[in-house]
Amino acid sequence: MKNPIHLMPLILVAWSMQAGAADPLPSWNDTSPKKAIIAFVEKVTKEGSADFVPVPERIAVFDNDGTLWTELPEYFQGIFVNDRIKAMAPQHPEWKTEEPYASILKGDVKKALAGGEKALLDLVMATHAGMTTDEFDKQVTDWLATAKHPKTGRPFTEMVFQPMLELLDYLRANGFKTFIVSGGGIEFMRPWTEKVYGIPPEQVVGSTGGLKYELRDGKPVIVKTPSLVLNDDKEGKPVGIQRHIGRRPIFAAGNSDGDFQMLEWTTTGSGARFGLIVHHTDAERECAYDRKSPFGKLDKGLDEAPKRGWTLVNMKDDWAAIYPEKK
Amino acid sequence: MKNPIHLMPLILVAWSMQAGAADPLPSWNDTSPKKAIIAFVEKVTKEGSADFVPVPERIAVFDNDGTLWTELPEYFQGIFVNDRIKAMAPQHPEWKTEEPYASILKGDVKKALAGGEKALLDLVMATHAGMTTDEFDKQVTDWLATAKHPKTGRPFTEMVFQPMLELLDYLRANGFKTFIVSGGGIEFMRPWTEKVYGIPPEQVVGSTGGLKYELRDGKPVIVKTPSLVLNDDKEGKPVGIQRHIGRRPIFAAGNSDGDFQMLEWTTTGSGARFGLIVHHTDAERECAYDRKSPFGKLDKGLDEAPKRGWTLVNMKDDWAAIYPEKK
Ligand SMILES: [Ca+2]
Ligand SMILES: [Ca+2]
Repeated sequence: MKNPIHLMPLILVAWSMQAGAADPLPSWNDTSPKKAIIAFVEKVTKEGSADFVPVPERIAVFDNDGTLWTELPEYFQGIFVNDRIKAMAPQHPEWKTEEPYASILKGDVKKALAGGEKALLDLVMATHAGMTTDEFDKQVTDWLATAKHPKTGRPFTEMVFQPMLELLDYLRANGFKTFIVSGGGIEFMRPWTEKVYGIPPEQVVGSTGGLKYELRDGKPVIVKTPSLVLNDDKEGKPVGIQRHIGRRPIFAAGNSDGDFQMLEWTTTGSGARFGLIVHHTDAERECAYDRKSPFGKLDKGLDEAPKRGWTLVNMKDDWAAIYPEKK
Repeated sequence: MKNPIHLMPLILVAWSMQAGAADPLPSWNDTSPKKAIIAFVEKVTKEGSADFVPVPERIAVFDNDGTLWTELPEYFQGIFVNDRIKAMAPQHPEWKTEEPYASILKGDVKKALAGGEKALLDLVMATHAGMTTDEFDKQVTDWLATAKHPKTGRPFTEMVFQPMLELLDYLRANGFKTFIVSGGGIEFMRPWTEKVYGIPPEQVVGSTGGLKYELRDGKPVIVKTPSLVLNDDKEGKPVGIQRHIGRRPIFAAGNSDGDFQMLEWTTTGSGARFGLIVHHTDAERECAYDRKSPFGKLDKGLDEAPKRGWTLVNMKDDWAAIYPEKK
């Protein structure tokens, strides 16, 4: 086969047929959520259709914890805080006796958090403020490079949901711009979302601490300060969307009542809209929890989803796979 | 010429030659700023070059007032405030005697602003808070549709700098993502920046007021509240950049000392960087002002630009045209 160029037309036909027939959501079973997603994308992208939405307005927003990756046994950012306190302890000998640090160092998270909101805030501020944004970026990146999920032993960045990765790709292939809108820390997510989700830092919205520009030894730095500029949860999610994106999304995905207002804001706009809730129903492959869970509590959303036309994804039945294959 | 397909190769050659030879910045004279811009773009986009920058990191930030459009006789947003006070007066009979409103209604801006920061804040809050984001968007859009620049009589959206429009296009054609980072109000800019500059709302950073999500008659709205979340000027500009973009730009353009820290933050990063200052030197075609101007004061920047390798654009000599041709 010295000159394979005569095969080109055949290859091209085969390739284009495959492309046409390719399933954009192979890890989704052929149940109603997948059909609803595809029907929505087809109608908003079909020129001339009554539901057509121009490309710049195809804004899709995704919660992170419990929607794009697992959130149990606790939010991964909580595990990061725990690990950072331990790593920072040698520089803080006073923590040996001072709560809530002392209990964290003894491995007693429950006792540490007995101090309520104040204790939690102390832990977050100790690990998220005082350093420059570059230093914090490195701390997150270094942690993710070695930390493992306590149940599966996999890196946290592999605890992401394969069906949702496909959904992000599918939306982007259809002209959507995908954003994260998470209660988690904005600077905690940005170092890895581009690589893991294909979502660049400028499309990440999250809970936001104060920042201060200053010169250190004549070198400009941005320092993280101990204040809260945005609590990107519940009513804070539409606020975060408006502040960062400045237009109303047409597609929103979440998993808990913390996403209620984001779904409400998205789906009550005019024209075609899509609301999606990931319902954690798979105790075997992931976790099963909803109304009573301390993490990702889904109660009002479960009741309201059918009334509001939101698509409930039953993880157990609707997802053929949960996580990406091991590398 | 029944079958013109035999002309195709010729047409393609001519077209590609033209494309290759086309001047991306026709409203820039062939002086050093234009040469510096093109040299920068060519080196950061040349694969394999030591200065190559991958597409996602090609972030360019632009000040607005005095950089992308004219800022005299006063910031256009100030004229909007003035006009809105007059339009709202019938609903506020108390303004006839209450300062600073009474003076604005009598056309005495100077006396109105004699009340200092408090007076200015009162005027801004009266016209920028209390309404929903949708209502404010409409107020800005309606105002721009009829308001005219007091000197030229042109709509404000035509008081934009043609050379800067070309620069925005040129950067985008080379894989840059262009952002506005302005001391002006974020919600004041978003309704029109996409149409005028090709910059979508999610790429606009500006001074930011409070927002509150609520239900009005069962309908979700986002209400603008009278508080300041970000003063996007001076040290606030790198903070706004980090908060919204989350990575350090490689190209920054401004025109006043309010842009100093943005230029400093951008150009002290590692690798190839570009800082640009528009120096208003053209009293005939636009305005001439710098060190002593109450609007767009440029003093420290003028001294520091040569030391820091920032490109000073001398509007009079470097720009072949100022505004787009009249429609
Ligand atoms: Ca969640
Ligand atoms: Ca300016």
